[in-house]
Amino acid sequence: MNRAPALDRIRVVLSHPSHPGNIGAAARAMKTMGLSQLWLVAPQRFPDEVAEARASGATDVLANARVVGSLEAALAGTVLSAAVTARRRELALPRRFAREAALEVVAHAADGEVALVFGNETSGLSNDEVGLCSMPVSIPANPEFSSLNLGAAVQLLCYEVRMAALAPSAPQDPQPAFATHDELERFHAHLERAVTASGFHDPANPKRLLPRMRRLFNRVRLEKEEVAILRGMLTAFEKHNPGHGE
Amino acid sequence: MNRAPALDRIRVVLSHPSHPGNIGAAARAMKTMGLSQLWLVAPQRFPDEVAEARASGATDVLANARVVGSLEAALAGTVLSAAVTARRRELALPRRFAREAALEVVAHAADGEVALVFGNETSGLSNDEVGLCSMPVSIPANPEFSSLNLGAAVQLLCYEVRMAALAPSAPQDPQPAFATHDELERFHAHLERAVTASGFHDPANPKRLLPRMRRLFNRVRLEKEEVAILRGMLTAFEKHNPGHGE
Repeated sequence: MNRAPALDRIRVVLSHPSHPGNIGAAARAMKTMGLSQLWLVAPQRFPDEVAEARASGATDVLANARVVGSLEAALAGTVLSAAVTARRRELALPRRFAREAALEVVAHAADGEVALVFGNETSGLSNDEVGLCSMPVSIPANPEFSSLNLGAAVQLLCYEVRMAALAPSAPQDPQPAFATHDELERFHAHLERAVTASGFHDPANPKRLLPRMRRLFNRVRLEKEEVAILRGMLTAFEKHNPGHGE
Repeated sequence: MNRAPALDRIRVVLSHPSHPGNIGAAARAMKTMGLSQLWLVAPQRFPDEVAEARASGATDVLANARVVGSLEAALAGTVLSAAVTARRRELALPRRFAREAALEVVAHAADGEVALVFGNETSGLSNDEVGLCSMPVSIPANPEFSSLNLGAAVQLLCYEVRMAALAPSAPQDPQPAFATHDELERFHAHLERAVTASGFHDPANPKRLLPRMRRLFNRVRLEKEEVAILRGMLTAFEKHNPGHGE
């Protein structure tokens, strides 16, 4: 089961893919982002060993792929379809960029099946194919070199869709145990004693040393264990210090 | 000239890549997002026809690639380095996700060279390699299948960096001068000498002291002035230390 059920309702449709390696790469890209529905419109070679090899563990996505004869068939039953295309088109619908489109895709996946549609490696999606879809989507790329590899384009769109689907509850790392205010104050007092004893700090002419150190260690948000290590270090420095202990 | 000059100061570093195809895919991914600086650490095969083929028009990126022998060499002169890694690590720095990290990468590219560091296809980045970088970065992926193809990972990070670089920039507080990679390495070496001389650190039985200190100070992003103060402090501690000076 997927943490974000919307992802289970998103089809990745590859129209007329030429290279089985790209089909495999697309399957792998999908699975890394939690998508599983791969639809292939008239692939030149499928199934194929090269696709299996490039899928690298996402062979389940390949095994469950649906092969259909036309883009219409791949879009049947969808409530929204996004045509991924680099080209500007004369009569194009207002173009969305990937991030914005992903929000719409995920929102509509609450209602039903949604498709992300990618064209052939060489020619991209035809005008007719774009016309069958609800909206054109572009990846904001270098205008002088905008042609992404098919697998890379699938990776990017699936990533944006995953980010949009998981947005409200981003995974969080467990927090370490941070030092308390009192522990930090004792550390700063210890530091002051040690730098004074070493001669580095002159209480009669304090300059900015101690405030600078406070600023540094406040910025880092010290953990309990780190404070213990730092104080152990200071104690070791003090022990060798003839000025200590007065 | 690039619309976003920050992109020209971002290195993509591939550490020990095995497959020339992935080097080519990375070059293409970079160019689609307007990046051009490719650094290769001890690639298994480079230059190579397979890389040329997969670069598909980004052969200029390959032709200008720098080949170096170690990750240290690839990071020399950088002000920030992001280690892209899927693994959770015991002593990991707080992990950033790609989108958040891209904002930092672009912000720091205003000051100097920045690196995005990717590991070997099979083994990823080692703990030592991650330790050399300023921060670990993860791509939020399917926890049950999180292994992106190397070219796809480069594509995603370059995309996020491009999105961050071209986003209308919010007014920013002036940034302090941060320490460079080289300055930080000299500081860590100095710290190691001082804690060893003081007896707090036993090189024969190192425990986790030095990695913990690296993690702490990487987290804070030390400024140049702070490094100078900390090193002054260490020197003062050492002077009173009978074990110093061997």
